[in-house]
Amino acid sequence: MARTMTCSGTDNLRHKTAVIIGSGNVATQLGKAICDKLNILQVFSPNLDNAYELSKVIGSEAINSISQIKCDADIYILAISDDAIEPFLKQVKCKNGLWIHTSGSTNINVLYGIGESQGVLYPLQTFSKHAELDFANINFLTEATSDYALNIIDSLAKATGSTNISHVSSLHREKLHVAAVFACNFANFMWTQADKILSDIGIEFNALQSLIEATLKKALTNGPEYGQTGPARRGDMKIITHHIESLDPYQAEIYKFISQKISEYYTSNS
Amino acid sequence: MARTMTCSGTDNLRHKTAVIIGSGNVATQLGKAICDKLNILQVFSPNLDNAYELSKVIGSEAINSISQIKCDADIYILAISDDAIEPFLKQVKCKNGLWIHTSGSTNINVLYGIGESQGVLYPLQTFSKHAELDFANINFLTEATSDYALNIIDSLAKATGSTNISHVSSLHREKLHVAAVFACNFANFMWTQADKILSDIGIEFNALQSLIEATLKKALTNGPEYGQTGPARRGDMKIITHHIESLDPYQAEIYKFISQKISEYYTSNS
Repeated sequence: MARTMTCSGTDNLRHKTAVIIGSGNVATQLGKAICDKLNILQVFSPNLDNAYELSKVIGSEAINSISQIKCDADIYILAISDDAIEPFLKQVKCKNGLWIHTSGSTNINVLYGIGESQGVLYPLQTFSKHAELDFANINFLTEATSDYALNIIDSLAKATGSTNISHVSSLHREKLHVAAVFACNFANFMWTQADKILSDIGIEFNALQSLIEATLKKALTNGPEYGQTGPARRGDMKIITHHIESLDPYQAEIYKFISQKISEYYTSNS
Repeated sequence: MARTMTCSGTDNLRHKTAVIIGSGNVATQLGKAICDKLNILQVFSPNLDNAYELSKVIGSEAINSISQIKCDADIYILAISDDAIEPFLKQVKCKNGLWIHTSGSTNINVLYGIGESQGVLYPLQTFSKHAELDFANINFLTEATSDYALNIIDSLAKATGSTNISHVSSLHREKLHVAAVFACNFANFMWTQADKILSDIGIEFNALQSLIEATLKKALTNGPEYGQTGPARRGDMKIITHHIESLDPYQAEIYKFISQKISEYYTSNS
């Protein structure tokens, strides 16, 4: 059923042409996932080698100068770092086509004045250039300035194999992005600290795998607020003091700060 | 094979008697998992109702006075909160048997002077009283004052169905425990903040499930240090400032602190 939906939902991409701006993790994974559903004319990157690496895989031209970008394509997909979007757009002269960015944190407004219509295709996922990705499980958050544009963007998401596509305003997408920073980037940083502590005693990080998975399962089932355990949640000052004494000053500062915040959270929400 | 190992490995528990001190999450799950491998005489809890709740499931006597504890049992399993261990031990008069605590953070020394031998049976896991647990995946960290005691304690771990048993000194177990605080308690707190941000816009926490699972998979495969992404890792001050402005003061303080620490970490380790 998912397959039928994907096929019937991407007919409107047939005979469409596209340009990919960027050659990093998102550009690479997205480009590979959609390249047989439409005709990707060019891959642009300031670094020609990087542009070439992707373009040879998806069968298109590699370019490294903004003036070389063809202005008669149907779709332009910006998959460059958030900071690079505005400087890039200031130099582009194209007045045609649907312009799409793939950033979680960037308002759709940034695209106004470029092309004919504008939109956002944000994959709520962490990307590596060469890892195998199962797009079926990736949530795409989409937004556009017209129904026609939204339809095309949803088809691009479907073309990857994803069946989780949600229409989300720029404001809500930005909230989702900051939530993802807490849930993934900050959680990962806590895992890094755990890994450092364990490496001191010759134990590998995956000794904690079953424990982390159980914690995540509880968080997904009952909500993380209710699954909170540990010395800070219990207010067990003896263990907290003992742990802080056992850590180096950098980790002790993190431990102290977060324990204090957990304590504040449960005091003010109890 | 696992089954054979479990059976042959727990023969030394047959005809042994035990007393469980505590009736909380660990006492309940551990008691249920081992009760058909040895004879559990008593469950002690200061709260008789709680002691009774567990004792009726595992077929033993419920008691709530320390003086009622039988001093001729073979094994005593303390599964009470870390803070309660020392005050409890000060009141116990028993000079016989193997005394075991189940705490990650408590040194084996706390048991010296009680019983004939001492040990630790620490399940590296987060427990709920009524959740179904797959003990096969739980790592047990064990330690004892004699080979005989260590043998009995390993058998108790095997009796639960676990096949992951490691002999770990008190010092290393304490390190593992503080690592688990970072990896689970602190990561879970980050998930709670993400959940709060999403609830403001009517989105459920499990919208982030696929993203969190991909982040964890990367951390387990390559080590979390190398999988770190996000604005703080990239030093993307524009997004960091934008995020901080969008958060309430409490969450903004957490965001600012952790971003600063990520930045320090990768500056000093680059």
